[in-house]
Amino acid sequence: MPAPIEIYFDFTSPYSYLLSEQIEALATKYGRSVKYKPTLLGVVFKVSGMGPLTEVPLKGDYSRRDFARSARFANVKFQMPDVFPVSSVNAARALLWLQSTGSAKSVPFVHQVFRAYFVHNRNISEVAVLGEIAEELGIDAKALVAATQDPAIKDKLKAAVDESIARGVFGAPFVFIDGEPFWGNDRLPQIEKWLQYGPF
Amino acid sequence: MPAPIEIYFDFTSPYSYLLSEQIEALATKYGRSVKYKPTLLGVVFKVSGMGPLTEVPLKGDYSRRDFARSARFANVKFQMPDVFPVSSVNAARALLWLQSTGSAKSVPFVHQVFRAYFVHNRNISEVAVLGEIAEELGIDAKALVAATQDPAIKDKLKAAVDESIARGVFGAPFVFIDGEPFWGNDRLPQIEKWLQYGPF
Repeated sequence: MPAPIEIYFDFTSPYSYLLSEQIEALATKYGRSVKYKPTLLGVVFKVSGMGPLTEVPLKGDYSRRDFARSARFANVKFQMPDVFPVSSVNAARALLWLQSTGSAKSVPFVHQVFRAYFVHNRNISEVAVLGEIAEELGIDAKALVAATQDPAIKDKLKAAVDESIARGVFGAPFVFIDGEPFWGNDRLPQIEKWLQYGPF
Repeated sequence: MPAPIEIYFDFTSPYSYLLSEQIEALATKYGRSVKYKPTLLGVVFKVSGMGPLTEVPLKGDYSRRDFARSARFANVKFQMPDVFPVSSVNAARALLWLQSTGSAKSVPFVHQVFRAYFVHNRNISEVAVLGEIAEELGIDAKALVAATQDPAIKDKLKAAVDESIARGVFGAPFVFIDGEPFWGNDRLPQIEKWLQYGPF
Protein backbone atom coordinates (compact mmCIF):
# COMPACT_ATOMS: atom_id res chain seq x y z
CA MET A 1 0.00 0.00 0.00
CA PRO A 2 1.55 3.35 -1.01
CA ALA A 3 1.78 6.17 1.54
CA PRO A 4 -1.40 8.11 2.38
CA ILE A 5 -2.03 11.51 0.85
CA GLU A 6 -1.49 14.08 3.60
CA ILE A 7 -3.79 17.11 3.40
CA TYR A 8 -2.98 20.12 5.57
CA PHE A 9 -6.02 22.36 5.58
CA ASP A 10 -8.06 24.95 7.46
CA PHE A 11 -11.83 24.68 7.81
CA THR A 12 -12.18 28.36 6.87
CA SER A 13 -10.33 27.96 3.57
CA PRO A 14 -12.59 27.78 0.47
CA TYR A 15 -9.92 26.14 -1.67
CA SER A 16 -9.39 23.53 1.07
CA TYR A 17 -13.11 22.77 0.88
CA LEU A 18 -12.99 22.47 -2.92
CA LEU A 19 -10.04 20.09 -2.72
CA SER A 20 -11.72 18.00 -0.01
CA GLU A 21 -14.65 17.39 -2.35
CA GLN A 22 -12.40 16.00 -5.09
CA ILE A 23 -9.28 14.40 -3.63
CA GLU A 24 -10.79 11.23 -2.19
CA ALA A 25 -12.07 10.07 -5.56
CA LEU A 26 -8.56 10.55 -6.94
CA ALA A 27 -7.02 8.78 -3.96
CA THR A 28 -9.32 5.79 -4.37
CA LYS A 29 -8.66 5.66 -8.12
CA TYR A 30 -4.94 5.30 -7.47
CA GLY A 31 -5.10 3.08 -4.37
CA ARG A 32 -4.25 5.70 -1.77
CA SER A 33 -5.83 6.72 1.52
CA VAL A 34 -6.11 10.31 2.72
CA LYS A 35 -5.06 11.82 6.02
CA TYR A 36 -6.67 15.16 6.92
CA LYS A 37 -4.36 17.32 9.04
CA PRO A 38 -5.89 20.53 10.40
CA THR A 39 -3.75 23.64 10.71
CA LEU A 40 -4.57 27.28 11.45
CA LEU A 41 -3.94 29.78 8.65
CA GLY A 42 -4.07 32.64 11.14
CA VAL A 43 -0.87 31.31 12.73
CA VAL A 44 0.70 30.18 9.46
CA PHE A 45 0.16 33.61 7.88
CA LYS A 46 2.07 35.24 10.75
CA VAL A 47 5.12 33.27 9.64
CA SER A 48 4.70 33.85 5.91
CA GLY A 49 3.56 37.45 6.28
CA MET A 50 0.47 36.84 4.18
CA GLY A 51 -3.17 37.47 5.06
CA PRO A 52 -6.64 36.22 4.21
CA LEU A 53 -7.15 36.44 0.43
CA THR A 54 -10.31 38.47 0.70
CA GLU A 55 -8.52 41.17 2.71
CA VAL A 56 -5.71 41.78 0.21
CA PRO A 57 -6.28 44.94 -1.88
CA LEU A 58 -7.46 44.10 -5.45
CA LYS A 59 -7.07 40.39 -4.74
CA GLY A 60 -10.13 40.33 -2.48
CA ASP A 61 -12.77 40.91 -5.16
CA TYR A 62 -11.10 38.52 -7.55
CA SER A 63 -10.85 35.84 -4.89
CA ARG A 64 -14.56 35.86 -4.12
CA ARG A 65 -15.29 35.54 -7.83
CA ASP A 66 -12.72 32.79 -8.22
CA PHE A 67 -13.99 30.74 -5.25
CA ALA A 68 -17.43 30.52 -6.85
CA ARG A 69 -16.18 29.96 -10.39
CA SER A 70 -13.69 27.31 -9.29
CA ALA A 71 -16.55 25.54 -7.49
CA ARG A 72 -18.71 25.59 -10.63
CA PHE A 73 -15.74 24.40 -12.67
CA ALA A 74 -15.32 21.44 -10.31
CA ASN A 75 -19.06 20.86 -10.07
CA VAL A 76 -18.98 21.37 -6.31
CA LYS A 77 -21.77 23.15 -4.41
CA PHE A 78 -20.60 26.44 -2.91
CA GLN A 79 -22.07 29.50 -1.30
CA MET A 80 -19.89 32.23 0.15
CA PRO A 81 -20.61 32.28 3.90
CA ASP A 82 -21.91 35.52 5.42
CA VAL A 83 -19.15 35.48 8.04
CA PHE A 84 -15.72 34.99 6.45
CA PRO A 85 -13.15 34.06 7.51
CA VAL A 86 -14.13 32.42 10.80
CA SER A 87 -12.08 30.95 13.59
CA SER A 88 -11.62 27.25 12.92
CA VAL A 89 -9.91 26.55 16.24
CA ASN A 90 -12.80 24.61 17.76
CA ALA A 91 -13.51 22.64 14.60
CA ALA A 92 -9.83 21.71 14.30
CA ARG A 93 -9.71 20.60 17.94
CA ALA A 94 -12.88 18.57 17.49
CA LEU A 95 -11.36 16.78 14.52
CA LEU A 96 -8.10 16.06 16.33
CA TRP A 97 -10.07 14.61 19.25
CA LEU A 98 -12.15 12.47 16.90
CA GLN A 99 -9.02 11.20 15.15
CA SER A 100 -7.41 10.42 18.51
CA THR A 101 -10.34 8.16 19.39
CA GLY A 102 -9.79 6.16 16.20
CA SER A 103 -13.33 7.00 15.07
CA ALA A 104 -14.30 6.00 11.54
CA LYS A 105 -16.31 9.20 11.43
CA SER A 106 -13.33 11.55 11.19
CA VAL A 107 -13.52 11.93 7.42
CA PRO A 108 -17.33 12.30 7.35
CA PHE A 109 -16.90 14.97 10.05
CA VAL A 110 -14.44 16.90 7.84
CA HIS A 111 -16.96 16.93 5.00
CA GLN A 112 -19.93 17.75 7.20
CA VAL A 113 -18.14 20.74 8.77
CA PHE A 114 -16.94 22.05 5.42
CA ARG A 115 -20.41 21.75 3.89
CA ALA A 116 -22.07 23.29 6.93
CA TYR A 117 -19.91 26.36 6.34
CA PHE A 118 -19.56 26.57 2.56
CA VAL A 119 -22.96 25.27 1.48
CA HIS A 120 -25.33 25.88 4.39
CA ASN A 121 -23.87 29.11 5.78
CA ARG A 122 -23.63 27.76 9.33
CA ASN A 123 -21.12 29.43 11.65
CA ILE A 124 -18.67 26.62 12.33
CA SER A 125 -16.70 28.70 14.82
CA GLU A 126 -19.47 28.04 17.37
CA VAL A 127 -19.17 24.91 19.48
CA ALA A 128 -22.97 24.58 19.48
CA VAL A 129 -22.91 24.20 15.68
CA LEU A 130 -20.12 21.63 15.94
CA GLY A 131 -22.22 19.76 18.51
CA GLU A 132 -25.18 19.70 16.10
CA ILE A 133 -22.95 18.37 13.33
CA ALA A 134 -21.66 15.66 15.68
CA GLU A 135 -25.22 14.62 16.46
CA GLU A 136 -26.12 14.50 12.77
CA LEU A 137 -23.28 12.02 12.32
CA GLY A 138 -24.02 9.93 15.40
CA ILE A 139 -20.92 11.20 17.21
CA ASP A 140 -21.10 11.83 20.98
CA ALA A 141 -21.79 15.58 20.81
CA LYS A 142 -21.19 16.26 24.49
CA ALA A 143 -17.79 14.59 24.41
CA LEU A 144 -16.85 16.43 21.21
CA VAL A 145 -17.83 19.83 22.61
CA ALA A 146 -15.95 19.09 25.84
CA ALA A 147 -12.86 18.07 23.86
CA THR A 148 -12.66 21.53 22.28
CA GLN A 149 -11.80 22.90 25.75
CA ASP A 150 -9.56 20.01 26.84
CA PRO A 151 -5.98 21.20 27.51
CA ALA A 152 -4.54 18.01 26.01
CA ILE A 153 -6.46 18.60 22.78
CA LYS A 154 -5.46 22.27 22.77
CA ASP A 155 -1.84 21.15 22.96
CA LYS A 156 -2.46 18.67 20.15
CA LEU A 157 -3.62 21.51 17.89
CA LYS A 158 -0.63 23.66 18.79
CA ALA A 159 1.64 20.74 17.90
CA ALA A 160 -0.26 20.16 14.65
CA VAL A 161 0.17 23.80 13.61
CA ASP A 162 3.87 23.75 14.53
CA GLU A 163 4.31 20.56 12.51
CA SER A 164 2.66 22.13 9.46
CA ILE A 165 4.95 25.17 9.64
CA ALA A 166 7.99 22.93 10.13
CA ARG A 167 7.02 21.11 6.93
CA GLY A 168 6.86 24.38 4.99
CA VAL A 169 3.09 24.81 4.86
CA PHE A 170 2.34 28.50 4.13
CA GLY A 171 -1.23 28.26 2.85
CA ALA A 172 -4.05 25.78 2.41
CA PRO A 173 -4.81 23.28 1.12
CA PHE A 174 -1.27 21.95 1.18
CA VAL A 175 -0.87 18.36 0.08
CA PHE A 176 2.07 16.00 0.44
CA ILE A 177 2.33 12.86 -1.65
CA ASP A 178 5.44 10.76 -1.10
CA GLY A 179 6.96 13.90 0.46
CA GLU A 180 6.27 16.06 -2.61
CA PRO A 181 4.44 19.33 -1.75
CA PHE A 182 1.47 20.61 -3.75
CA TRP A 183 -0.14 23.90 -2.72
CA GLY A 184 -3.68 24.75 -3.70
CA ASN A 185 -6.78 23.19 -5.13
CA ASP A 186 -5.50 24.17 -8.59
CA ARG A 187 -2.65 21.66 -8.30
CA LEU A 188 -5.14 18.77 -8.67
CA PRO A 189 -4.06 18.06 -12.28
CA GLN A 190 -0.43 17.78 -11.15
CA ILE A 191 -1.50 15.68 -8.18
CA GLU A 192 -3.31 13.29 -10.49
CA LYS A 193 -0.30 13.02 -12.77
CA TRP A 194 1.91 12.23 -9.76
CA LEU A 195 -0.53 9.60 -8.49
CA GLN A 196 -0.73 7.99 -11.91
CA TYR A 197 2.88 8.08 -13.07
CA GLY A 198 4.95 8.96 -9.99
CA PRO A 199 7.56 11.72 -9.90
CA PHE A 200 7.75 13.96 -13.00
CA MET B 1 -14.54 37.51 -34.61
CA PRO B 2 -14.77 37.27 -30.81
CA ALA B 3 -12.78 39.66 -28.63
CA PRO B 4 -9.04 39.08 -28.24
CA ILE B 5 -7.66 37.42 -25.14
CA GLU B 6 -5.94 40.15 -23.10
CA ILE B 7 -2.85 38.99 -21.22
CA TYR B 8 -1.37 41.28 -18.57
CA PHE B 9 2.06 40.00 -17.74
CA ASP B 10 5.56 40.83 -16.52
CA PHE B 11 8.68 39.54 -18.28
CA THR B 12 10.18 38.54 -14.92
CA SER B 13 7.21 36.34 -13.96
CA PRO B 14 7.81 32.57 -14.43
CA TYR B 15 4.09 31.78 -14.50
CA SER B 16 3.60 34.48 -17.16
CA TYR B 17 6.25 32.73 -19.24
CA LEU B 18 4.55 29.35 -18.78
CA LEU B 19 1.20 30.79 -19.82
CA SER B 20 2.72 32.52 -22.86
CA GLU B 21 3.95 29.16 -24.12
CA GLN B 22 0.47 27.65 -24.01
CA ILE B 23 -2.21 30.29 -24.51
CA GLU B 24 -1.78 30.94 -28.21
CA ALA B 25 -2.52 27.33 -29.15
CA LEU B 26 -5.73 27.60 -27.11
CA ALA B 27 -6.59 30.96 -28.67
CA THR B 28 -6.15 29.60 -32.17
CA LYS B 29 -8.18 26.49 -31.36
CA TYR B 30 -11.14 28.65 -30.35
CA GLY B 31 -10.76 31.39 -32.98
CA ARG B 32 -9.33 34.11 -30.75
CA SER B 33 -6.36 36.41 -31.05
CA VAL B 34 -4.11 37.37 -28.14
CA LYS B 35 -3.05 40.82 -26.97
CA TYR B 36 0.04 40.95 -24.74
CA LYS B 37 -0.11 43.83 -22.26
CA PRO B 38 3.04 44.42 -20.20
CA THR B 39 2.73 45.61 -16.62
CA LEU B 40 5.24 45.93 -13.77
CA LEU B 41 4.72 43.66 -10.77
CA GLY B 42 7.01 45.86 -8.69
CA VAL B 43 4.44 48.66 -8.95
CA VAL B 44 1.41 46.35 -8.75
CA PHE B 45 2.72 44.70 -5.58
CA LYS B 46 2.95 48.10 -3.89
CA VAL B 47 -0.81 48.40 -4.28
CA SER B 48 -1.65 44.84 -3.25
CA GLY B 49 0.95 44.68 -0.49
CA MET B 50 2.41 41.47 -1.89
CA GLY B 51 6.00 40.73 -2.87
CA PRO B 52 7.98 38.47 -5.19
CA LEU B 53 7.02 34.83 -4.50
CA THR B 54 10.58 33.74 -3.93
CA GLU B 55 11.05 36.31 -1.17
CA VAL B 56 8.05 35.25 0.94
CA PRO B 57 9.07 33.11 3.96
CA LEU B 58 8.30 29.39 3.39
CA LYS B 59 6.67 30.20 0.05
CA GLY B 60 10.02 30.93 -1.59
CA ASP B 61 11.38 27.38 -1.62
CA TYR B 62 8.06 25.94 -2.69
CA SER B 63 7.75 28.47 -5.51
CA ARG B 64 11.08 27.56 -7.06
CA ARG B 65 10.12 23.89 -6.96
CA ASP B 66 6.69 24.65 -8.38
CA PHE B 67 8.01 26.80 -11.27
CA ALA B 68 10.10 23.88 -12.50
CA ARG B 69 7.47 21.20 -11.87
CA SER B 70 4.73 23.27 -13.53
CA ALA B 71 7.01 23.69 -16.54
CA ARG B 72 7.59 19.93 -16.76
CA PHE B 73 3.86 19.34 -16.34
CA ALA B 74 3.16 21.67 -19.27
CA ASN B 75 6.06 20.28 -21.28
CA VAL B 76 7.68 23.72 -21.48
CA LYS B 77 11.44 24.25 -21.30
CA PHE B 78 12.47 26.09 -18.14
CA GLN B 79 15.61 26.92 -16.23
CA MET B 80 15.55 29.18 -13.17
CA PRO B 81 17.61 32.27 -14.10
CA ASP B 82 20.63 33.09 -11.95
CA VAL B 83 19.38 36.63 -11.39
CA PHE B 84 15.76 36.64 -10.22
CA PRO B 85 13.66 38.69 -10.26
CA VAL B 86 15.02 41.27 -12.71
CA SER B 87 13.78 44.67 -13.75
CA SER B 88 11.57 44.27 -16.78
CA VAL B 89 11.15 47.99 -17.37
CA ASN B 90 13.28 48.13 -20.52
CA ALA B 91 11.78 44.97 -22.00
CA ALA B 92 8.26 46.27 -21.37
CA ARG B 93 9.09 49.62 -22.98
CA ALA B 94 10.65 47.87 -25.97
CA LEU B 95 7.49 45.82 -26.46
CA LEU B 96 5.21 48.86 -26.17
CA TRP B 97 7.33 50.66 -28.76
CA LEU B 98 7.21 47.67 -31.08
CA GLN B 99 3.44 47.39 -30.71
CA SER B 100 3.07 51.14 -31.41
CA THR B 101 4.86 50.68 -34.75
CA GLY B 102 2.33 48.03 -35.76
CA SER B 103 5.14 45.50 -36.16
CA ALA B 104 4.14 41.89 -36.80
CA LYS B 105 7.13 40.94 -34.66
CA SER B 106 5.59 41.99 -31.36
CA VAL B 107 4.45 38.49 -30.40
CA PRO B 108 7.69 36.80 -31.51
CA PHE B 109 9.53 39.42 -29.44
CA VAL B 110 7.48 38.47 -26.35
CA HIS B 111 8.47 34.83 -26.76
CA GLN B 112 12.10 35.55 -27.56
CA VAL B 113 12.52 37.74 -24.46
CA PHE B 114 10.81 35.22 -22.21
CA ARG B 115 12.92 32.35 -23.55
CA ALA B 116 16.11 34.39 -23.34
CA TYR B 117 15.44 34.78 -19.63
CA PHE B 118 13.78 31.51 -18.62
CA VAL B 119 15.59 29.09 -20.91
CA HIS B 120 18.91 30.72 -21.81
CA ASN B 121 19.64 32.57 -18.57
CA ARG B 122 20.24 35.91 -20.34
CA ASN B 123 19.79 39.06 -18.28
CA ILE B 124 16.84 40.73 -20.01
CA SER B 125 17.08 43.81 -17.80
CA GLU B 126 20.03 44.94 -19.93
CA VAL B 127 19.28 46.98 -23.03
CA ALA B 128 22.25 45.37 -24.78
CA VAL B 129 20.57 41.96 -24.44
CA LEU B 130 17.28 43.39 -25.71
CA GLY B 131 19.18 44.83 -28.68
CA GLU B 132 20.65 41.39 -29.44
CA ILE B 133 17.21 39.82 -29.29
CA ALA B 134 15.90 42.50 -31.65
CA GLU B 135 18.67 41.69 -34.12
CA GLU B 136 17.93 37.98 -33.92
CA LEU B 137 14.36 38.77 -34.97
CA GLY B 138 15.27 41.25 -37.69
CA ILE B 139 13.97 44.20 -35.68
CA ASP B 140 15.82 47.55 -35.86
CA ALA B 141 17.93 47.09 -32.71
CA LYS B 142 19.15 50.68 -32.52
CA ALA B 143 15.62 52.06 -32.70
CA LEU B 144 14.41 49.55 -30.10
CA VAL B 145 17.19 50.41 -27.66
CA ALA B 146 16.58 54.13 -28.17
CA ALA B 147 12.87 53.64 -27.55
CA THR B 148 13.57 52.29 -24.05
CA GLN B 149 14.79 55.79 -23.12
CA ASP B 150 12.15 57.74 -25.06
CA PRO B 151 9.99 59.87 -22.70
CA ALA B 152 6.88 59.13 -24.76
CA ILE B 153 7.44 55.38 -24.39
CA LYS B 154 8.19 55.79 -20.69
CA ASP B 155 4.82 57.52 -20.33
CA LYS B 156 3.19 54.73 -22.30
CA LEU B 157 4.47 52.15 -19.80
CA LYS B 158 3.30 54.26 -16.84
CA ALA B 159 -0.14 54.42 -18.44
CA ALA B 160 -0.09 50.67 -19.13
CA VAL B 161 0.71 49.89 -15.49
CA ASP B 162 -1.98 52.30 -14.27
CA GLU B 163 -4.47 50.68 -16.61
CA SER B 164 -3.63 47.21 -15.28
CA ILE B 165 -4.16 48.33 -11.68
CA ALA B 166 -7.40 50.08 -12.61
CA ARG B 167 -8.61 46.77 -14.05
CA GLY B 168 -7.84 44.95 -10.81
CA VAL B 169 -4.62 43.23 -11.85
CA PHE B 170 -2.71 42.23 -8.68
CA GLY B 171 -0.38 39.57 -10.06
CA ALA B 172 0.71 37.98 -13.30
CA PRO B 173 -0.23 36.50 -15.62
CA PHE B 174 -3.67 38.05 -15.47
CA VAL B 175 -5.96 37.22 -18.36
CA PHE B 176 -9.24 38.81 -19.44
CA ILE B 177 -11.61 37.02 -21.78
CA ASP B 178 -14.83 38.85 -22.58
CA GLY B 179 -14.13 40.92 -19.44
CA GLU B 180 -13.83 37.84 -17.19
CA PRO B 181 -10.62 37.82 -15.10
CA PHE B 182 -8.39 34.75 -14.73
CA TRP B 183 -5.28 34.99 -12.56
CA GLY B 184 -2.39 32.61 -12.99
CA ASN B 185 -1.07 29.98 -15.33
CA ASP B 186 -3.03 27.42 -13.32
CA ARG B 187 -6.32 28.88 -14.54
CA LEU B 188 -5.67 27.50 -18.05
CA PRO B 189 -8.24 24.68 -17.61
CA GLN B 190 -10.90 27.24 -16.67
CA ILE B 191 -9.78 29.49 -19.53
CA GLU B 192 -10.21 26.63 -21.98
CA LYS B 193 -13.67 25.84 -20.62
CA TRP B 194 -14.64 29.51 -21.03
CA LEU B 195 -13.29 29.63 -24.59
CA GLN B 196 -15.13 26.44 -25.51
CA TYR B 197 -18.50 26.92 -23.82
CA GLY B 198 -18.61 30.58 -22.78
CA PRO B 199 -19.53 31.78 -19.28
CA PHE B 200 -19.93 29.07 -16.65
